[in-house]
Amino acid sequence: MIIIMKPGAKPASIQNVIKTIQDHGLRAHLSEGDQVTIIGVVGDKARLAHSNIQLAPEVEKIVNVTESYKLANRKFHPDDTIIHLDHTQIGSGILTVMAGPCAIESEEQLLSTARAVKKAGATFLRGGAYKPRTSPYSFQGLEEEGLKYMKTAREETGLKVICEVTSARAIETAARYVDMLQIGARNMQNFELLKEAGKTGIPVLLKRGLAATIDEWLNAAEYIMSEGNENVVLCERGIRTFETSTRNTLDISAVPVLKERTHLPVIIDPSHAAGVRAYVAPLAKAAVAAGADGLMIEVHPCPACALSDGPQSLTFEDFDHLCQELRPYAALAGREF
Amino acid sequence: MIIIMKPGAKPASIQNVIKTIQDHGLRAHLSEGDQVTIIGVVGDKARLAHSNIQLAPEVEKIVNVTESYKLANRKFHPDDTIIHLDHTQIGSGILTVMAGPCAIESEEQLLSTARAVKKAGATFLRGGAYKPRTSPYSFQGLEEEGLKYMKTAREETGLKVICEVTSARAIETAARYVDMLQIGARNMQNFELLKEAGKTGIPVLLKRGLAATIDEWLNAAEYIMSEGNENVVLCERGIRTFETSTRNTLDISAVPVLKERTHLPVIIDPSHAAGVRAYVAPLAKAAVAAGADGLMIEVHPCPACALSDGPQSLTFEDFDHLCQELRPYAALAGREF
Amino acid sequence: MIIIMKPGAKPASIQNVIKTIQDHGLRAHLSEGDQVTIIGVVGDKARLAHSNIQLAPEVEKIVNVTESYKLANRKFHPDDTIIHLDHTQIGSGILTVMAGPCAIESEEQLLSTARAVKKAGATFLRGGAYKPRTSPYSFQGLEEEGLKYMKTAREETGLKVICEVTSARAIETAARYVDMLQIGARNMQNFELLKEAGKTGIPVLLKRGLAATIDEWLNAAEYIMSEGNENVVLCERGIRTFETSTRNTLDISAVPVLKERTHLPVIIDPSHAAGVRAYVAPLAKAAVAAGADGLMIEVHPCPACALSDGPQSLTFEDFDHLCQELRPYAALAGREF
Amino acid sequence: MIIIMKPGAKPASIQNVIKTIQDHGLRAHLSEGDQVTIIGVVGDKARLAHSNIQLAPEVEKIVNVTESYKLANRKFHPDDTIIHLDHTQIGSGILTVMAGPCAIESEEQLLSTARAVKKAGATFLRGGAYKPRTSPYSFQGLEEEGLKYMKTAREETGLKVICEVTSARAIETAARYVDMLQIGARNMQNFELLKEAGKTGIPVLLKRGLAATIDEWLNAAEYIMSEGNENVVLCERGIRTFETSTRNTLDISAVPVLKERTHLPVIIDPSHAAGVRAYVAPLAKAAVAAGADGLMIEVHPCPACALSDGPQSLTFEDFDHLCQELRPYAALAGREF
Repeated sequence: MIIIMKPGAKPASIQNVIKTIQDHGLRAHLSEGDQVTIIGVVGDKARLAHSNIQLAPEVEKIVNVTESYKLANRKFHPDDTIIHLDHTQIGSGILTVMAGPCAIESEEQLLSTARAVKKAGATFLRGGAYKPRTSPYSFQGLEEEGLKYMKTAREETGLKVICEVTSARAIETAARYVDMLQIGARNMQNFELLKEAGKTGIPVLLKRGLAATIDEWLNAAEYIMSEGNENVVLCERGIRTFETSTRNTLDISAVPVLKERTHLPVIIDPSHAAGVRAYVAPLAKAAVAAGADGLMIEVHPCPACALSDGPQSLTFEDFDHLCQELRPYAALAGREF
Repeated sequence: MIIIMKPGAKPASIQNVIKTIQDHGLRAHLSEGDQVTIIGVVGDKARLAHSNIQLAPEVEKIVNVTESYKLANRKFHPDDTIIHLDHTQIGSGILTVMAGPCAIESEEQLLSTARAVKKAGATFLRGGAYKPRTSPYSFQGLEEEGLKYMKTAREETGLKVICEVTSARAIETAARYVDMLQIGARNMQNFELLKEAGKTGIPVLLKRGLAATIDEWLNAAEYIMSEGNENVVLCERGIRTFETSTRNTLDISAVPVLKERTHLPVIIDPSHAAGVRAYVAPLAKAAVAAGADGLMIEVHPCPACALSDGPQSLTFEDFDHLCQELRPYAALAGREF
Repeated sequence: MIIIMKPGAKPASIQNVIKTIQDHGLRAHLSEGDQVTIIGVVGDKARLAHSNIQLAPEVEKIVNVTESYKLANRKFHPDDTIIHLDHTQIGSGILTVMAGPCAIESEEQLLSTARAVKKAGATFLRGGAYKPRTSPYSFQGLEEEGLKYMKTAREETGLKVICEVTSARAIETAARYVDMLQIGARNMQNFELLKEAGKTGIPVLLKRGLAATIDEWLNAAEYIMSEGNENVVLCERGIRTFETSTRNTLDISAVPVLKERTHLPVIIDPSHAAGVRAYVAPLAKAAVAAGADGLMIEVHPCPACALSDGPQSLTFEDFDHLCQELRPYAALAGREF
Repeated sequence: MIIIMKPGAKPASIQNVIKTIQDHGLRAHLSEGDQVTIIGVVGDKARLAHSNIQLAPEVEKIVNVTESYKLANRKFHPDDTIIHLDHTQIGSGILTVMAGPCAIESEEQLLSTARAVKKAGATFLRGGAYKPRTSPYSFQGLEEEGLKYMKTAREETGLKVICEVTSARAIETAARYVDMLQIGARNMQNFELLKEAGKTGIPVLLKRGLAATIDEWLNAAEYIMSEGNENVVLCERGIRTFETSTRNTLDISAVPVLKERTHLPVIIDPSHAAGVRAYVAPLAKAAVAAGADGLMIEVHPCPACALSDGPQSLTFEDFDHLCQELRPYAALAGREF
């Protein structure tokens, strides 16, 4: 932590800051410039966290030197995290493709989709049983009944299954049926939910919030990890900007930024980012080329009949075609698919 | 709902859309332009909600004519909602000032603040017992112990008390101690929480999400109201933009926009919007001048010692001075304070 | 300038940075923390500007301690700038109201507006002769003919007149007719235009770019001032965000932020910010309450006939009513109007 | 154009709108819903452009059905535009790589870079002679001297050369030396400059403004094209968002969106988008995979000595390595490189 004093700060103000630092058992390192005095804090800055030193007289600003997330930080864990689930894995040398409908609507809809995405190459089936919808009058999901269909699909196809959870109660139920929990964008800073997901020990896919910075996102991952669950996968799904041609703006740069800052796997959801079916394939290829560990893609037997997100869903045929197109890109990126 | 066909759409595509509309028991109204054909849908469009008509061949786009929120919509409820709490009220002719610390830290801290803000003119004491913090290593709140102090403060001063809730469990506990529940920005689209808050019947202050449009915010209010709780107050607290001089960007225009679209009271939180103590007073005055029904302001006996949000908290003296400055502005705006 | 090294940076990397600093005739101040080493640079950092020291091995990041704008900076010029134009002024104790049509359409349109806004209390007439329009097929302005009408209006009413300029040629022409030049939002970083406006010595109103940070805006003002023209007024007119209920989002916090960072006068344009006539009055009142030095408001004899920006223009009657409403707000804010 | 009336609009208001439409020689098509009446306008809506019909009594909103850009619109020009320059081309089946320093600093710097990028596979040399810099105290470019070095580099290497222009005067000078003009992000809506560039007939690379929507960008292209110059290439270089990990946020989705809306070639500048050298390669690969027609990349003989944008520049070796990596991606995307 570095404390920058206002230009021409009085010696008494500088001494006051130094004393505060020392009173917390830390060392202050003084650097007097021509215009500005800077005070470095040496030691564990957590001790100063509640001192609000930025309110001391003539303090201009505080610069934090170290990130507040530790477990998710590549600096303290240089090797890539690999999440093993039986015969499959997420991370390092594998391209993981998760596919399925936005919302689970019926057993037949889910099973037919499971068979189709399995055949095309997916290793995970996605499907929403608890749907966070903007309007209370939209379809809200089949809840536990949907989870039962997920389990059936898993048993029949051997796919791993992942489902979004939106409350502690949903986590408790879902934990009995699925291989992986998903925390959605709207709940990325629902810290109670993050802690509950952390306690289960089940792998968690954490979607980025619509307006979350990458550092806030990594701090959200830290909530899950600090409960003892280090099996976290980050999923970029578009951020909110002024551009309205797409539902959200896919922040493709998040892939290399995350690869630098964290050891956790990173996957991309081009369906929610684009919101338009025709843009899903180019964004999926871009994601693989940028170095993503996987993709999450919406697929529906009949997009025009879907109860949620039809316009961005691929048909079985579209998805099969996309998987074929993706194979050589995965190979170039050094990933098995 | 209006359906705009692509230029030169084939008659078969147009007939297909018309048939879909009629199959849902609605009437289609055809308007053939030189370049473009437009089809109006007459009747209850909710019947079409799951038809994904935008995926039909040669459909260019869909334009919704009516809002999806009903209970919060001024069109169907022209008169201002007034929320009555014993001898005080929120809305219509009153400027409601809520003040207190970001986080409840001790009984003494809370009681001294309650006395000071009451004296200056506040009618509500705010204070956080459950704190959603970006990092899991920051102070997370005193929970039920903090709520007990709130109750004590209420009994001693006669102030109404409001506290943020972050989980169904917190709502259950808080309901025994407070007059009003607060849903924070990070939980604005935590729909499970909104529904739980709706079920209590206790007045709810709903903060705007960092990246929520005004229409998404009104839909979030609709979640609470559709559970039978119409006592909702909207609180603008800054949105996320590219500008970093302030913690968030206060969207002051939200006041007149909301006054047009909804009958619910609107209050402004200049403390979280600014993130800097010196900007709180000018923004508070601007809010009153723009027509807000109230203010929520952070006050702390010793901002430099605060466990949370110290830099944006006012001292007792600052707050007292601000209230004096606000009085003539409230009078100009036709509000008692 | 502060240089933060990566955790565990090697002594050779640290020595390399120190040597670079010393080679530029500056002093390096070393601060070794437990995890991180920090190097302060003492002396005129401009000497280091081209050294790209952030590319040196094991440098984590660079923190700038001082702003790059000097002439616009309140630190070096603590007193408010007042711009005197004959019997009127902008800044300090005065509320300056500029009003008029978006585009000058005819002599009669401009003169009737001039008379009406003068009567209501404006001291400046605004009117566009060179219109930067999103589409090349929209009305582009009357150019010099429009400027002549401005001059006529000035002579008849005694109002000062201001007009937007969009090219060096337009500046040359406008300089013969108007009292103040306006640089629009789209040209805020058209640095050639800023320099040309700087050379004229005529007062300049500099609108904020749609996506310009406050610091970029002050650097744009610095371009004008560094040509010897210190008569610059800053005009906030809304920034681009995700919210679409208003044409732009008025950043009302810019008023207190600018008052802290610069000595230049600050005015608000609620018309372009809102884009909707009904929101202009509440935003104008908020601007005065927040401490703005003035307002720029679009007024048109017949908004429904306007060739540009009709939806956000006030009628004569609306404007007169608004001026009456603003008077007590101006008085409260300590400004003559 | 569709006009949506307010719920319960009076017959007189509806008749008034119909009359206005008919008075402009157009046909009105009435569609009366249960709640809302909608009026379609049949005919050339340009006739209505100045009528401000949205201000008529009880009009709720106006929906535009057709885009305002025509020459740039794929609807009226379905085939891809290919820009031919002697033996090379931009668009359709080719991956065009433009590379070079941000700013031209010396003949030796430019020539050595030209040789290196030519050898690696670039067909265009980029280099700035007129630099729009945020602060007036930063290096502003060598101007005509720099252009002479560009010409020398072209003659020696056979590369095509492109240079940013920032004023009418710069266009006049640059036209004598370069093969292609670049309009930078800050000048995307400097309409005078666009018109001047249009008049030259020289191919123009138009960068997207920091906060420009895709439709505004296409309208800016329309300004150039409407002067008779149809050789326009669009260059996405990152938009401004709340995320600060990268200098800007690369909007990779702009590639498929533009491919749908326009026939003009699209290239990506990953250097300015990222602002960080390590992110350039993954973004460049993503751009090719998403379907871009080319790349513009900053290369410098010594990034650590660069007078501008050093942190985001590649060394010769980096660039050569990137070109080798890009080749199989170009092949997969069906492009020669």
